[in-house]
Amino acid sequence: MLKFAPLVGFAMVTASIDERRFRRRFDEFSEIGATENGGVNRPSLSDENKEARDTLIEWFRDAGLTVRIDEMGNIFGRRSGMDSDADPVVFGSHIDSQYNGGRYDGVIGVLGGLEVVEALNDADETTERPLEVVAWSNEEGVRFQPDMLGSGVFCDIFDLDYAYEREDKDGDTFGEELERIGYKGDEPCEAHDIHCYFEMHVEQGPFLEREDLPVAAVEGVFGFSWMNVTFEGQANHAGPTPMNMRHDAFVATADVTDSVRRITATEGTDLVGTVGSVDVWPNAINVIPERVEFTVDFRSYDDEVVDAAVERIRNEIAHAAEREGLEYEFEEIMRIDADPFDQSCIDTVVDAAETVGCEYTRLVSGAGHDANYLNKIAPTSMIFVPSVDGISHRESEYTEWEDVVTGTEVLLEAVRSKATV
Amino acid sequence: MLKFAPLVGFAMVTASIDERRFRRRFDEFSEIGATENGGVNRPSLSDENKEARDTLIEWFRDAGLTVRIDEMGNIFGRRSGMDSDADPVVFGSHIDSQYNGGRYDGVIGVLGGLEVVEALNDADETTERPLEVVAWSNEEGVRFQPDMLGSGVFCDIFDLDYAYEREDKDGDTFGEELERIGYKGDEPCEAHDIHCYFEMHVEQGPFLEREDLPVAAVEGVFGFSWMNVTFEGQANHAGPTPMNMRHDAFVATADVTDSVRRITATEGTDLVGTVGSVDVWPNAINVIPERVEFTVDFRSYDDEVVDAAVERIRNEIAHAAEREGLEYEFEEIMRIDADPFDQSCIDTVVDAAETVGCEYTRLVSGAGHDANYLNKIAPTSMIFVPSVDGISHRESEYTEWEDVVTGTEVLLEAVRSKATV
Repeated sequence: MLKFAPLVGFAMVTASIDERRFRRRFDEFSEIGATENGGVNRPSLSDENKEARDTLIEWFRDAGLTVRIDEMGNIFGRRSGMDSDADPVVFGSHIDSQYNGGRYDGVIGVLGGLEVVEALNDADETTERPLEVVAWSNEEGVRFQPDMLGSGVFCDIFDLDYAYEREDKDGDTFGEELERIGYKGDEPCEAHDIHCYFEMHVEQGPFLEREDLPVAAVEGVFGFSWMNVTFEGQANHAGPTPMNMRHDAFVATADVTDSVRRITATEGTDLVGTVGSVDVWPNAINVIPERVEFTVDFRSYDDEVVDAAVERIRNEIAHAAEREGLEYEFEEIMRIDADPFDQSCIDTVVDAAETVGCEYTRLVSGAGHDANYLNKIAPTSMIFVPSVDGISHRESEYTEWEDVVTGTEVLLEAVRSKATV
Repeated sequence: MLKFAPLVGFAMVTASIDERRFRRRFDEFSEIGATENGGVNRPSLSDENKEARDTLIEWFRDAGLTVRIDEMGNIFGRRSGMDSDADPVVFGSHIDSQYNGGRYDGVIGVLGGLEVVEALNDADETTERPLEVVAWSNEEGVRFQPDMLGSGVFCDIFDLDYAYEREDKDGDTFGEELERIGYKGDEPCEAHDIHCYFEMHVEQGPFLEREDLPVAAVEGVFGFSWMNVTFEGQANHAGPTPMNMRHDAFVATADVTDSVRRITATEGTDLVGTVGSVDVWPNAINVIPERVEFTVDFRSYDDEVVDAAVERIRNEIAHAAEREGLEYEFEEIMRIDADPFDQSCIDTVVDAAETVGCEYTRLVSGAGHDANYLNKIAPTSMIFVPSVDGISHRESEYTEWEDVVTGTEVLLEAVRSKATV
């Protein structure tokens, strides 16, 4: 420990990431709920999620952090600052995973935050402001919907009771399961004053790898629209029914899927559109599809572009139904506006990257994060590190370790920069 | 009973359908396995199928028919002819149903055949050739695949052991279940000499209703190709993955579905094409589809048209995969040639319609029937009656009773015409 190394003149011992310690912890953490194919299976409030929480808290305490657990099971590890009354700089992410998900998603933001604290400890550097490393509950939303539930209650997006009543597919509630694993804490789950929030996360997209860059300062998050569509036609025999007498719900679905792609090519510059979920009835080789339920997802950083895309696809759906002689239902089940992060925090990340001396870019995130909710109550930005092949939410999710380290160095510098009074 | 009515001079009592008796039996039969929504649930070798068999045999015996049951549970009811050595005229269909299927499909061909016998009995008319009414086992193929299993073994398309080993989804075999319901008969299931075969059936398509005609003489059955296709791409997050870096298996499926329709519009004149079954993985609103498995069904009465369509869609599949950067698999899992019926039997049906004095047309069947297999061993044709809205295989399947009666009158005349030596 450099903590006890004597200071020589005015030369401060510069806090720096211990790459090997960080890696050792990451590897040990990856053993919890490890899957055969190199991923982890630690869905929210599972036994494996509890074990990961226990391990994290042990390491928080080893690093001298004061641990608090709130009513949602969000875990905070606080490091005192010189000014104990100042609002803390908060940084972290989540440690729950998808079912058979990747090792990096969320985890590097939490263990990276811990490593920032360890680096400051090593350098015996006390910041002016207190620091808090946080692990938010139920970010993934695969076991309990909606996602980002822990940060959502914290930021007053959801009521606590609403969160407790969320059920998994077996009918077990979030509240029951939180109590079962012993993580229903005493501290009220409500926003305390936060000076600013940083979150380091894997990009979950291909930009950084394509540009061969280790780090991005995240300027905000795409807005999006989620739509459910149902086409209802007539399930006749695929043999004796001539083409001009059909009411084929899947033909219309194919039309709309083509329209989604055409709209993304002609509306705005960053619009993406996806038909991700498709269910067909009766789903038999020799029966004309009677009913198809499918989803459309549009995202852009420009809210007007998303609105225009929704309007266009709504028209295309109506036209496809009319052409094929179908009934249809259209429902926009979620509409989230684009979320620009705090300019000062973005600048802080950019400056930190300059200080570290790494190459970097600025990106807008296509995916949502806990940082979205935090951005509503405190100045916020994020740091992205590359996702190889843009893959996430799968066991094959991978980030070069040197990029994780570079991202953590940037996080350290950003935290140090903002931790002044 | 007109049986004992005295003949007056040379005027024969003309055999004619007793509409009310026929209707009464049809209604009583429809009670067996009746569903709440007006259909029947009598899948092959179910308890309800046994009850239907028991009832049929009772009625066969009441009508003076000699009942034989073969090793496949096919039920034959024989009426003697003046020439007991002559090959019989055989007519019938099937009494197994789809799960929650309709009341008419198959049943009208069997009960119609019984009514033909009753009409001849009423008129005390003995044909020169023996007559046999038949109910084939397992035509629908919903519980045990493949369909048309009873007629298939009879016509030496399938081995008896193969048929016995077919399993339902619970692992029960056709042989075990046939024995359980007491319908594994002693008579070998093999083709005996048959003079000709007629089958009255619902059209399962919309032509007759559209043309407002009660009856069609069926000239043959469409050939068809069944194909399984798999596209495999990459399941990335729908937000951060730009459109030009996607490998979306469902976009390619939509392309191919559009191609199926385009091919039917430009190849031949009677080609129909259907994408009926579609399964998407991981099937989530915010994940680009990684894998899609789907089916293509092409049918035409012109085998070259089917072959050309298969060749064209195979190319379209390859192009769609290349555009989207996907792996793909293509397999033609079944290819049945078009099956023209016997010209003399077709003419007999046409002449019978003329004799009855009803309007009629000639049709080619888009769906397969037991008659397809019978056509391989004996001169064969079919009689179609209308399906309202072209609907079959559903509880809402419906045919006007007067059309069923007209079809049965045509069947009677066709049978009488062919029953001469």
